[in-house]
Amino acid sequence: MNPDITKERKNATFDVEKLTYILDGGPEKTKRRREIESLVFSDPDFNEEDPNFLSRSDRYDQAVRKSAQMILKLREYGIADPEEIYCYKKMVQGNFHEALGLHFVMFLPTLYSQCDAEQARKWLPLAESFQAIGTYAQTEMGHGTHLRGLETTATYDPATQEFVLNSPTISSIKWWPGGLGKTSNHAIVLAQLHTLGNCHGIHAFIVPIRDMSTHIPLPGIVVGDIGPKFGFSEVDNGFLKLENVRLPRDNMLMKYAKVEPDGTYLKPPSAKLTYGTMVFIRSLIVGESARALSKASIIAIRYSSVRHQSEIRAGEPEPQILDYQTQQYKLFPLLATAYAFTFVGQYMRETYQRISGDISDGDFSQLPELHALSAGLKAFTTWTANAGIEVCRMSCGGHGYSRSSALPDIYVEFTPACTYEGENTVMMLQTARHLVKSYRQAKEGQQLSGTVSYLNDANLQRVQPQTVAARPTVVDVNDLASLVEVYKQRASILVELAAKSIQQELQRRKCQEDAWNNSSIDLVRASDAHCHYVVVKLFTDKLGEIGDTAIHSVLSTLALLYALHGIKNNSGDFLQAGLLSVPQVLQVSVRVKELLSQLRPNAVALVDSFDINDKRLNSILGRYDGNVYEHLFEWARRSPLNATEVHESFHKYLKPLRSQL
Amino acid sequence: MNPDITKERKNATFDVEKLTYILDGGPEKTKRRREIESLVFSDPDFNEEDPNFLSRSDRYDQAVRKSAQMILKLREYGIADPEEIYCYKKMVQGNFHEALGLHFVMFLPTLYSQCDAEQARKWLPLAESFQAIGTYAQTEMGHGTHLRGLETTATYDPATQEFVLNSPTISSIKWWPGGLGKTSNHAIVLAQLHTLGNCHGIHAFIVPIRDMSTHIPLPGIVVGDIGPKFGFSEVDNGFLKLENVRLPRDNMLMKYAKVEPDGTYLKPPSAKLTYGTMVFIRSLIVGESARALSKASIIAIRYSSVRHQSEIRAGEPEPQILDYQTQQYKLFPLLATAYAFTFVGQYMRETYQRISGDISDGDFSQLPELHALSAGLKAFTTWTANAGIEVCRMSCGGHGYSRSSALPDIYVEFTPACTYEGENTVMMLQTARHLVKSYRQAKEGQQLSGTVSYLNDANLQRVQPQTVAARPTVVDVNDLASLVEVYKQRASILVELAAKSIQQELQRRKCQEDAWNNSSIDLVRASDAHCHYVVVKLFTDKLGEIGDTAIHSVLSTLALLYALHGIKNNSGDFLQAGLLSVPQVLQVSVRVKELLSQLRPNAVALVDSFDINDKRLNSILGRYDGNVYEHLFEWARRSPLNATEVHESFHKYLKPLRSQL
Repeated sequence: MNPDITKERKNATFDVEKLTYILDGGPEKTKRRREIESLVFSDPDFNEEDPNFLSRSDRYDQAVRKSAQMILKLREYGIADPEEIYCYKKMVQGNFHEALGLHFVMFLPTLYSQCDAEQARKWLPLAESFQAIGTYAQTEMGHGTHLRGLETTATYDPATQEFVLNSPTISSIKWWPGGLGKTSNHAIVLAQLHTLGNCHGIHAFIVPIRDMSTHIPLPGIVVGDIGPKFGFSEVDNGFLKLENVRLPRDNMLMKYAKVEPDGTYLKPPSAKLTYGTMVFIRSLIVGESARALSKASIIAIRYSSVRHQSEIRAGEPEPQILDYQTQQYKLFPLLATAYAFTFVGQYMRETYQRISGDISDGDFSQLPELHALSAGLKAFTTWTANAGIEVCRMSCGGHGYSRSSALPDIYVEFTPACTYEGENTVMMLQTARHLVKSYRQAKEGQQLSGTVSYLNDANLQRVQPQTVAARPTVVDVNDLASLVEVYKQRASILVELAAKSIQQELQRRKCQEDAWNNSSIDLVRASDAHCHYVVVKLFTDKLGEIGDTAIHSVLSTLALLYALHGIKNNSGDFLQAGLLSVPQVLQVSVRVKELLSQLRPNAVALVDSFDINDKRLNSILGRYDGNVYEHLFEWARRSPLNATEVHESFHKYLKPLRSQL
Repeated sequence: MNPDITKERKNATFDVEKLTYILDGGPEKTKRRREIESLVFSDPDFNEEDPNFLSRSDRYDQAVRKSAQMILKLREYGIADPEEIYCYKKMVQGNFHEALGLHFVMFLPTLYSQCDAEQARKWLPLAESFQAIGTYAQTEMGHGTHLRGLETTATYDPATQEFVLNSPTISSIKWWPGGLGKTSNHAIVLAQLHTLGNCHGIHAFIVPIRDMSTHIPLPGIVVGDIGPKFGFSEVDNGFLKLENVRLPRDNMLMKYAKVEPDGTYLKPPSAKLTYGTMVFIRSLIVGESARALSKASIIAIRYSSVRHQSEIRAGEPEPQILDYQTQQYKLFPLLATAYAFTFVGQYMRETYQRISGDISDGDFSQLPELHALSAGLKAFTTWTANAGIEVCRMSCGGHGYSRSSALPDIYVEFTPACTYEGENTVMMLQTARHLVKSYRQAKEGQQLSGTVSYLNDANLQRVQPQTVAARPTVVDVNDLASLVEVYKQRASILVELAAKSIQQELQRRKCQEDAWNNSSIDLVRASDAHCHYVVVKLFTDKLGEIGDTAIHSVLSTLALLYALHGIKNNSGDFLQAGLLSVPQVLQVSVRVKELLSQLRPNAVALVDSFDINDKRLNSILGRYDGNVYEHLFEWARRSPLNATEVHESFHKYLKPLRSQL
């Protein structure tokens, strides 16, 4: 054990283990998680070379092998609870992704939810036994977020009772679905349904794409890998071009909408039914943001405690870089953010579970609120975590660029979350739509509930951008409740500003849509402020649940840092609205510095509490024992370029060059 | 040609070609650049597969081949002017790096500047004929920025008149030098010089590391590649462990410091002599920031003009995504920044040339100013470009994640600039040291010159953080001169705040060093504001040189957007200092939106003006002709995973799985 990191752990003022229980949701959960994790450590089948040393094809190969092994082992161990499966898989995957991911996350769930009884009897056994391996093909080369824009067609032919599927243009080729390129033999394809001369919009079809026994692509199917990406090397994101592919009528998923044998189209009873999955996945992504940022913080903070560099006082030994104020200022607000997002992730999971109960009872009343919240928080947390991971990476000096640090991998595997499952700016605008609608309802006298209830506040009319001097300043920058209030008021004002911008555009005779577009900068800003308020509030609420005094104290410091750092970074908003005075903003800067010093002794203990095992973190800089340099050397020596002492390029190019000059 | 992009070009209000001349520095320069570039296009030796499809070893192999070919071709064509060589190499390399880069950038220049006459006679012919291929080994595994911390030792043995070189610890292993792993047979090694029982600090030694004919590592040398990184796959950044390596006395570079045969040490005449190269390279990096951000803007803006998505008005065709205000708000400020940095890069190059004339005449008076400016601007521009490239990438939706977009490559090849040649936070603090020193000098009545001369201003004493209402507001947010003034005052106030923070810490009985560390957040902020001011000022100054009315107009719009966007993002500073009123800040937001609309018709023409050839850009999304989708499909089909229809993993794992369940 590195003596610096040992010293750090001795300095902690709280019990790391107890904080881990809080993060896991209780000591039993921690225990069970560790049991499952130990199944992976002790399993020689999962000993492997660093994927960074392998070619793309070998990485994919290794990922398929591991997916197949996981399936067998999960059955062998009898692990069936989704949370436990998730935990097992995360441990196997480390910082990478699963080759068969879409089969589990999209193909099977879609079959479960959208097959009619007869279809279920046919397809579920095939999919559950991996005779049918599937993916979900929605996105096209030229069409992403906007579902109505999809071009793939499925035209019903009553003569043969078949659908004829086509990719009529280059831009209609299905593009991006995970596992589509090489792994899957089936795809749920979303296509525009045409029957009896009418188009009925997007519907889902089960399309066999490869022969189930030879795996060779079927006639009319052009399928392959979309090529190398920023990350996701383990996954064969694919393309699919359909050329007059004929499907039996009952390959359309018919639980809700139907096409009768004669071509008659029957509408689905409600459009809201597919809404829930989307909300669920976005809620999960909030947790993923927390995890990715936690991992990056662990690595950067542990490394900063063992790395010595430069000098603060001349002639003295080089200090730990964690003693530099600038380093603390980079890392501790991100550590606070990782905690904040972890608690927000817990809240979103619980809320989803609560509301999905209502939904299955047919009560959709809470769905718009949850939809808006999950969209905005998905964007807010992924953007923040995305930028934060890179700050952590660059805080590690040169070694942060080495793949051995795991920071490049954590970044490239996480960053797509800013785009998939709803592009972030689009998500922010969806939340804004809900905020503006709620604002208008409140103005019309409706009583709002949920996170937008602040828009009810009577003082809304009075809160206006104005000079600082004119407003009373009652905020206590040391009191979290007071800060929640000030974040709330900021959100309220920015929602109002955005709504007024729309109003002004309309008065300039712009149509509704152009008025919206011309206000979209303000709308995104309003959503951002709303989400920021929600995060500060949920972090503060969480403190109320914490009994242990030492832990309560350190988490309160983190929450205060999170809130004040956010004010410092957005001080213009608070000054502009007259919510804070100039002396208060200066005071915030001073307090932030004090909080950094206050957190310094607990920094390593706070990242230890995330309890992410070395094997899962897979980072030499982030090792629990702090023994960074010897392992960095050992890792480098295994690099493929070191397989031979002399690289062949010397004999091929460099030696001949001399005689050619 | 894609009709959307043709339409964009028709809408431009200025002559693209003329703006290209301004960016190149004149029509002759544009002409010569294009001549050199065409030598590469027309050369079949440089037709190659996308490096993203190759293994690490093959990428390195291809890079060595190209380096060898470039050397031969440059001689064949008689290209010897450094700027023209740079241009040729950039064209060959595209978005990647040169395997032999350090030989040219560090090994040869060090030999030229630090060999004595006899050494030059021996080493220059060897290095110029590539018998000796070299690199520059300074950084160690545990030591980066802080030179005095290096641990490698060179101990003089008078008995044999040799130096004995050692890596006494793991952390002293040389780590990161480009070309060290496999390519070089020599390294300039920086080591602590010990002679006659005294240590004389860091000196440079020429160390043979591989046999010049067999390329096998020499006795006592442990050398290899440091393993895969975030980018730089073409470069064999290496490690070097020295185990009692004996070198003849004259392998120490002796132009300045010397060790006599008996071990007597002779000091160098001045320490400032090695200072110049560092300043030069940092100045160049400012230009690299401009280029990287230009490339990313070209790709994102061209793609946004051909990409249609979602809807603004219901029922109408999907609009070009460049019509969305949020998209303009992401991209146009970055476009403005790319222009700003291009002009700052030109200024830095010219200033360096001017001052280096003085330096060779023995006049070092301007060096501290240039040193501070190059350090700060290196950090300011690389951080901004780094974040900006990622914004461009994520503005392209899913396809920005594809390696075919080139955006991931541009990012990973550029991001190390935030760390190498001086870690950015350290750079900002170096600039801050100069600012605080200048501030104190001004307070003591000294008259400052150069970019810090604003610290002379008498009104400095009067400008204080205060409530907005109390200050007169004379700023015209539509007038660039007025905005330069307000940026200047902000810088001035933030320098003063930082200096006062140090003062306050000293009054709390902190030592000088701790006072500095405890003020370092404020110091970085002050440097940032200083650099921001310099950039706004240099962009504004540049407008004065532009005669063409149409170009002057569009560049003025860009400059205004750059300045106002910076105010919007840092509005807290301007409000806090009372430099702008609340209504003015609101007015800034409105003006920013207007400027986005104003720039919209010229956006594609503005990126066309950078005149970066398709072959050099190597981006399918950024193609000049806008024909994105057909080429994306064609590129994907060449992906290595598509070499076979059925990947072997199906037969190895997926098929057997079914029978095992």
